Amino acid sequence: MKIKTGADYMESLKSLSPKIYYKGQIIDDVTTHLATAPHVRAAAMTYAVASSENHRELATATSHLTGRTISRFTHIHQNAEDLIKKIKLLRVLGQKTGTCFQRCVGFDGINAVYSVAYEIDQKHCSEYLERFKKWLVRIQDENLMVVGAMTDPKGDRSKGPAMQDDPDQYVHISKRSSEGITIRGAKLHMTGAVNSHEILVMPTTAMDETSKDFAVVCSVPVDAPGITMIFGRQANDSRRDLKEMIDTGNPSFGAVGGEAVIVFDDVFIPWENVFMDGETDFTGLLVYRFAAHHRANYGACKTGLMDVLTGAVSYLSQIQGTSGGSHVRDKITEMIHLSETLYSSSIACSAEGVPTPSGAFMVDTMLANICKHNVTRFHFEVARLAIDLAGGFIATLPSEHDLRSEDVGPLVKKYFKGISDIPVEERIKIGRLIEAMTGGTAMVESMHGAGSPQAQRIMIFREGRLKEKIELAKALAGIPGKGA
Amino acid sequence: MKIKTGADYMESLKSLSPKIYYKGQIIDDVTTHLATAPHVRAAAMTYAVASSENHRELATATSHLTGRTISRFTHIHQNAEDLIKKIKLLRVLGQKTGTCFQRCVGFDGINAVYSVAYEIDQKHCSEYLERFKKWLVRIQDENLMVVGAMTDPKGDRSKGPAMQDDPDQYVHISKRSSEGITIRGAKLHMTGAVNSHEILVMPTTAMDETSKDFAVVCSVPVDAPGITMIFGRQANDSRRDLKEMIDTGNPSFGAVGGEAVIVFDDVFIPWENVFMDGETDFTGLLVYRFAAHHRANYGACKTGLMDVLTGAVSYLSQIQGTSGGSHVRDKITEMIHLSETLYSSSIACSAEGVPTPSGAFMVDTMLANICKHNVTRFHFEVARLAIDLAGGFIATLPSEHDLRSEDVGPLVKKYFKGISDIPVEERIKIGRLIEAMTGGTAMVESMHGAGSPQAQRIMIFREGRLKEKIELAKALAGIPGKGA
Amino acid sequence: MKIKTGADYMESLKSLSPKIYYKGQIIDDVTTHLATAPHVRAAAMTYAVASSENHRELATATSHLTGRTISRFTHIHQNAEDLIKKIKLLRVLGQKTGTCFQRCVGFDGINAVYSVAYEIDQKHCSEYLERFKKWLVRIQDENLMVVGAMTDPKGDRSKGPAMQDDPDQYVHISKRSSEGITIRGAKLHMTGAVNSHEILVMPTTAMDETSKDFAVVCSVPVDAPGITMIFGRQANDSRRDLKEMIDTGNPSFGAVGGEAVIVFDDVFIPWENVFMDGETDFTGLLVYRFAAHHRANYGACKTGLMDVLTGAVSYLSQIQGTSGGSHVRDKITEMIHLSETLYSSSIACSAEGVPTPSGAFMVDTMLANICKHNVTRFHFEVARLAIDLAGGFIATLPSEHDLRSEDVGPLVKKYFKGISDIPVEERIKIGRLIEAMTGGTAMVESMHGAGSPQAQRIMIFREGRLKEKIELAKALAGIPGKGA
Amino acid sequence: MKIKTGADYMESLKSLSPKIYYKGQIIDDVTTHLATAPHVRAAAMTYAVASSENHRELATATSHLTGRTISRFTHIHQNAEDLIKKIKLLRVLGQKTGTCFQRCVGFDGINAVYSVAYEIDQKHCSEYLERFKKWLVRIQDENLMVVGAMTDPKGDRSKGPAMQDDPDQYVHISKRSSEGITIRGAKLHMTGAVNSHEILVMPTTAMDETSKDFAVVCSVPVDAPGITMIFGRQANDSRRDLKEMIDTGNPSFGAVGGEAVIVFDDVFIPWENVFMDGETDFTGLLVYRFAAHHRANYGACKTGLMDVLTGAVSYLSQIQGTSGGSHVRDKITEMIHLSETLYSSSIACSAEGVPTPSGAFMVDTMLANICKHNVTRFHFEVARLAIDLAGGFIATLPSEHDLRSEDVGPLVKKYFKGISDIPVEERIKIGRLIEAMTGGTAMVESMHGAGSPQAQRIMIFREGRLKEKIELAKALAGIPGKGA
Repeated sequence: MKIKTGADYMESLKSLSPKIYYKGQIIDDVTTHLATAPHVRAAAMTYAVASSENHRELATATSHLTGRTISRFTHIHQNAEDLIKKIKLLRVLGQKTGTCFQRCVGFDGINAVYSVAYEIDQKHCSEYLERFKKWLVRIQDENLMVVGAMTDPKGDRSKGPAMQDDPDQYVHISKRSSEGITIRGAKLHMTGAVNSHEILVMPTTAMDETSKDFAVVCSVPVDAPGITMIFGRQANDSRRDLKEMIDTGNPSFGAVGGEAVIVFDDVFIPWENVFMDGETDFTGLLVYRFAAHHRANYGACKTGLMDVLTGAVSYLSQIQGTSGGSHVRDKITEMIHLSETLYSSSIACSAEGVPTPSGAFMVDTMLANICKHNVTRFHFEVARLAIDLAGGFIATLPSEHDLRSEDVGPLVKKYFKGISDIPVEERIKIGRLIEAMTGGTAMVESMHGAGSPQAQRIMIFREGRLKEKIELAKALAGIPGKGA
Repeated sequence: MKIKTGADYMESLKSLSPKIYYKGQIIDDVTTHLATAPHVRAAAMTYAVASSENHRELATATSHLTGRTISRFTHIHQNAEDLIKKIKLLRVLGQKTGTCFQRCVGFDGINAVYSVAYEIDQKHCSEYLERFKKWLVRIQDENLMVVGAMTDPKGDRSKGPAMQDDPDQYVHISKRSSEGITIRGAKLHMTGAVNSHEILVMPTTAMDETSKDFAVVCSVPVDAPGITMIFGRQANDSRRDLKEMIDTGNPSFGAVGGEAVIVFDDVFIPWENVFMDGETDFTGLLVYRFAAHHRANYGACKTGLMDVLTGAVSYLSQIQGTSGGSHVRDKITEMIHLSETLYSSSIACSAEGVPTPSGAFMVDTMLANICKHNVTRFHFEVARLAIDLAGGFIATLPSEHDLRSEDVGPLVKKYFKGISDIPVEERIKIGRLIEAMTGGTAMVESMHGAGSPQAQRIMIFREGRLKEKIELAKALAGIPGKGA
Repeated sequence: MKIKTGADYMESLKSLSPKIYYKGQIIDDVTTHLATAPHVRAAAMTYAVASSENHRELATATSHLTGRTISRFTHIHQNAEDLIKKIKLLRVLGQKTGTCFQRCVGFDGINAVYSVAYEIDQKHCSEYLERFKKWLVRIQDENLMVVGAMTDPKGDRSKGPAMQDDPDQYVHISKRSSEGITIRGAKLHMTGAVNSHEILVMPTTAMDETSKDFAVVCSVPVDAPGITMIFGRQANDSRRDLKEMIDTGNPSFGAVGGEAVIVFDDVFIPWENVFMDGETDFTGLLVYRFAAHHRANYGACKTGLMDVLTGAVSYLSQIQGTSGGSHVRDKITEMIHLSETLYSSSIACSAEGVPTPSGAFMVDTMLANICKHNVTRFHFEVARLAIDLAGGFIATLPSEHDLRSEDVGPLVKKYFKGISDIPVEERIKIGRLIEAMTGGTAMVESMHGAGSPQAQRIMIFREGRLKEKIELAKALAGIPGKGA
Repeated sequence: MKIKTGADYMESLKSLSPKIYYKGQIIDDVTTHLATAPHVRAAAMTYAVASSENHRELATATSHLTGRTISRFTHIHQNAEDLIKKIKLLRVLGQKTGTCFQRCVGFDGINAVYSVAYEIDQKHCSEYLERFKKWLVRIQDENLMVVGAMTDPKGDRSKGPAMQDDPDQYVHISKRSSEGITIRGAKLHMTGAVNSHEILVMPTTAMDETSKDFAVVCSVPVDAPGITMIFGRQANDSRRDLKEMIDTGNPSFGAVGGEAVIVFDDVFIPWENVFMDGETDFTGLLVYRFAAHHRANYGACKTGLMDVLTGAVSYLSQIQGTSGGSHVRDKITEMIHLSETLYSSSIACSAEGVPTPSGAFMVDTMLANICKHNVTRFHFEVARLAIDLAGGFIATLPSEHDLRSEDVGPLVKKYFKGISDIPVEERIKIGRLIEAMTGGTAMVESMHGAGSPQAQRIMIFREGRLKEKIELAKALAGIPGKGA
């Protein structure tokens, strides 16, 4: 691995020159700019854990392509154990960052494209997998961060890609030449985009024959000509930008993954980096595989975040002198219960993983959808319980400026004090951490990341094997079955 | 009414000189300062509706003390119809402001103190009610805004007022003289404090004989010597402070009531404005009455907010081309269902209102507690559904600066467009409104305002009349009853 | 009132000769037959309360037609107070019977037909209301029990009345003559049918012009020629039939309303008892009015049942020595909370009642639908909590025969004993009461009585006034409105 | 395996002569008595699947003691794969029987006693494990069914075993001799007891030194002198007893496991079958291990039942012509979602299984508790949704006698018909199956089997590692940790 440490990673980002806007201004260096630095630090943790004695086994793997030790985030899952290790790694990283560390998007993209490329080749006699392996060895050896880019703007959602007034509402091939292709369009909500090395572009939905130009998979460096990124607002981003450190809640790592819009304005990609070109019959499968892998993750990383929240309210109840209350214990129990319910599905869909024709392992898709669907409920309930236990002060706390003011600082310290032997700053910091983790952007991400709730429901119904279940019921009710 | 219009109200605030800090700085004029102006405008709406043809009947009342037409917010409820009119008024104001308009805190304080003063006088041969009536006529005639000040810091919550290391953790009388009293301590989370005229101080909990100095009710102008206020942070307050108007979501009225800490540093109050002095035996009743009135409100004002949210996601689904989806309609149905469930209890506890010995009407306390308790659940669920229907873009939208940028503005406009015949700015504005109303401070307020969930559960259990219910069960099961 | 007491009522039933089947056999006398007697006793309670000092005010009313004192169950609501009194009466009756007392179905039918007849007459120059008043005066004066008969079998639900293979799937007029009409078809789930005096037939759904013969409202005595009833099975009905008294749980009044199928095999009805004949344009309104009235009730009678359940588990926790547990208190609190939430909507939709053109008062339809919809959730949750608190013994208790057995009776008594000073029979009886009230038929009735959940959701969406709400949101987001 | 088939199993039961009472009468032959036969058939399925080509791999295992092929239900788990196979086997059996097949209680008892016996021996230098292995080889070779007997009556639950007025409220050693011990007391809710071969007695709770005589583990044949069983009532058991086959819903296998009280009236047990005698320090661990294994199961067998329910309502919606409704599909989706959420935890706690010191594998206890705790919620919600989709007819259906009656049979058939091409009997049978699986005993068992909800919450809180979580939160909030 060329990039070994968090510091290496940051250094590597400095050598890139992506065009990124934030609040109307260009960002020169994502590693130091106040808006992006926390997200860089969170992603850096995915590099750092690989060197940690405690986590190395989870954080690294042996490449099935080269036999070399690589970051797990660049690995093709070879068995169910790999899938489970991914889950455990994500929970640890969630616990250590309290936020999104971004790198699993590309990880899942790599695994989805790998297995689908194999199947396209089998059917269409193409050679995508060889191209992709070559590309992947580079990613593994250099240990690059890849952003999986799937979500298109979609414009009028009652219409498909080819029916939009503006074709750029879905990324598509605008030109083909002997050297390669050019693509146009945009991808929204791109987690970790501004601090990745490469963008792995994938289609956003199943398509039919009318949408051949929209069926494209390819990879491109983040600073390729024609690419513009616009970094999105987050809840309370100005606290971060104005260096109000305590008030940001999670000053080191931020509240969310650092999402951006990526615009492709006729961006050229050489053929060696094109992994799907018009095979609309595989777009659905690719989305399905990517989504399942990604949905499995949410029961891991978000459980890590809920572990932090559970710890935060536990500590706060000690500070406030309420930790002995039976309702306090009961609500903390509920927070743990919901967190571990989510974790269950992540583990289960991994333990039930199966090989694809390519040999790459897939999670159980039903259970992965179950997992994410519960995140869209239970993370909100855990946040609600945290807000309940935290108390109203997280909504009315004066700012850090007041805390430090000569005039009113002593008043803030006096009147936000809890029990006597814990410094008031600790109560304030924990309160701000809870605030940051339970409101706004953080929760919206949890709802929609890896697919909105209805996307999971469609899959759950589709994979529910109702015909078999009807036969079970008929047998017990004494009704002759299909075969009778 | 001296103050007749919203403009009158703003004018009246200019003549006061409260000492208010925000982000370490003094606020000179709350009507123009960016941090406080939206809250002033929201409170001004409580004045404005009184002149509106449509709402006058709800917004005004006839004083039972003077026979003069007064703002309902200064009225003593004379019957159940008054209670119901209050509820309807609050829903309208919630719909019109999309936030907390603050003035019901004082309203409920006035009603609670009025009825309790009567009962103290009956028992202790005091003359609090006469004093209070005199004060109240002034409030009614001048149409002043009063902040009801109840919540003390409480320090170590495992200990009562008199057992704290620092006695100032609960507001108390620090000195008595022939002219009056001085009080010390602080009140937290004071909604509307910075733009009120008077502070009505009340005890925060039931107390016993050991806490006589803490059993104090009194009124004091917001700019009395010794009073300092510190205005609290809110979610995304810097967007407001930096005039990022669209990004604030609800630029006119803000996201919440504008809470502040009020510190009393030996503040003098003449006897004529003291309405309880040491009658600990009535502290519980006062809190109980205030809380019940206030809890009743939440099913009204918050329903108004949820009406706005429901409208916002309905419109957004039209813009995005998804309004025909059965799951979209189903979720909107659920939002309405939960909102109206809340509203039911507000109406019911008012319709079931009963007179206190003073003649002032009280809501049904059981149903008022039910009401607020459901708010702490259903408002969160409504917000969750709104986030679901809004889509992920409310978490990743670029800022207003990007929208207006020459470089990237056209890209933002192109890629956040929905259906073709609605301007992209409308999608963005609605998205920001939903963001503001579903995350952070707004939700925390809904959880803890008018009492945290456990406070309601204690009341619900206490008033559950279990003995009677046991007799019902025994009768049906054929078990001889108590009387047998 | 001719029928004054419960005993009068039973006597009056003996003079009727309806044709009723149960388990393949004819029932001769519903007042003594083991299957029907509990339901007769429950209905008799609606007569008995009218003589009770405590309940007379709720249970009687003054006829607006005759000025005479009548049972409230035959009254046309004249104002919101009438509506509220109905709610309070139903809660009391639920508490006293622990089950369905059946008589509100006809009550709601009467009120719906009354107000709609007026409007049909206005539009179609018919004279239905006069006919209906004449009929109603008889019902009031004799104090008869009327079963409101609405639900048709419906056959293939993807098709309307006129499209069924078998037209009898919806009740319809099979013949018209100068004397009257004959009707064919059946009504299912007819609560209280076997012990009513009259059947008030109403259409089950909104219909269009193709279904004129199905748009029929009429009244007919339960023992008219051509009518056959089949009494339905209930959970554990054999315990009742075999006189296993303790094991039935609620031996006096049963677990549910005593539902039956009513078959009309060309039943003749004279014109004077026909109140709609082909006015399909009013079928929707009639269903709407009936359903709203009936849905309002469920938050009252079911709350009465939940009061009993709450008392039952409270007593059981005392018997078992667990009443001090914080989780026990918390679950009881939740049971009360959910019960009172339901009650709120019953009160609220009544307090917000409005006059129809006929002068008869209607509940607020939105809030009535909210009420019933919550019943389909919260009654189940209350039952679940009761099962939780009751403990597993309600599923494994030996039978009453074992309790009374010389061989094993002493063992049952020894090993199902709780604390020492309460007889073991009380634990067993309370356990059986909880069993009866939380499982099977009782719960199914709560789900589907007064309309299945989806029926309410359709109304809630339809009456949600989304256009107004969209305008509220646009106003706050700074988007020019419709009128702009 | 001596007993190979379901028929062998039934034959083997005939050679036993347990003393069993039901409804005050002795049961002579459990295999033919109407009350017990369905449960015998359900248990027989655990034997039958071992011969099935499809299920042999799940249903059998290789004994680590003898190397012989044995029923998995007598196996000591040797690895996580064994744990997962158990889960899959239980789901299949749930699907095939639609009810409790009883045999996992003994299975879990065997595994708990095995691992704990090892640890007792290590600490106390006893030889329980050798004794137990000898016993277990017999169980494995003969393929016996063992009932794990844990739950004591407990009398006054505010007092422990040694403090009860009647010591028999907890099973205890009443005498010790050189040959063995005699025990007194009773075990309640004993699933499968009447059709087991052996009873494995275990303590019901953690005990201290004062309760040495209550700390007993031993095995005894079901027909040992001094044992009396009383078979409990179930919902609608008389339908079964009166051979109303369709009306029982699940005529082959019944609605629940067939629970009984087992009374021990000074029953003698030779030392060779005593596996704990006074080691109170291991009572807690034994209960903990047994409970965890057993709680893991509920996400498997109950998911099997929910599969049946999901199939039943799917088929019913086809029969009724409603399968195309979006709300129907949505509710079916929710049923699947909740079922698979439960299944997740069963799989996850198995995949995360760990070896005990004895080598026997244990499930992850946190996740096993999570699993069962969700059963106490989601099984109820699934039942509620099934009742919703089934429609009200399952509460009002006339009896089988009416269906077969010459008089009213044709009416029942005419008016309960759905779409034309499915026989009405199928609608009725499916309705009765849903009725049987959603009401009464079946649901109570789901709540309390393997421990009531509060038992799981205590474990979840205890194992929640709050200290570690507090450190995570402090680290992110920038608060110096414990170690700092």
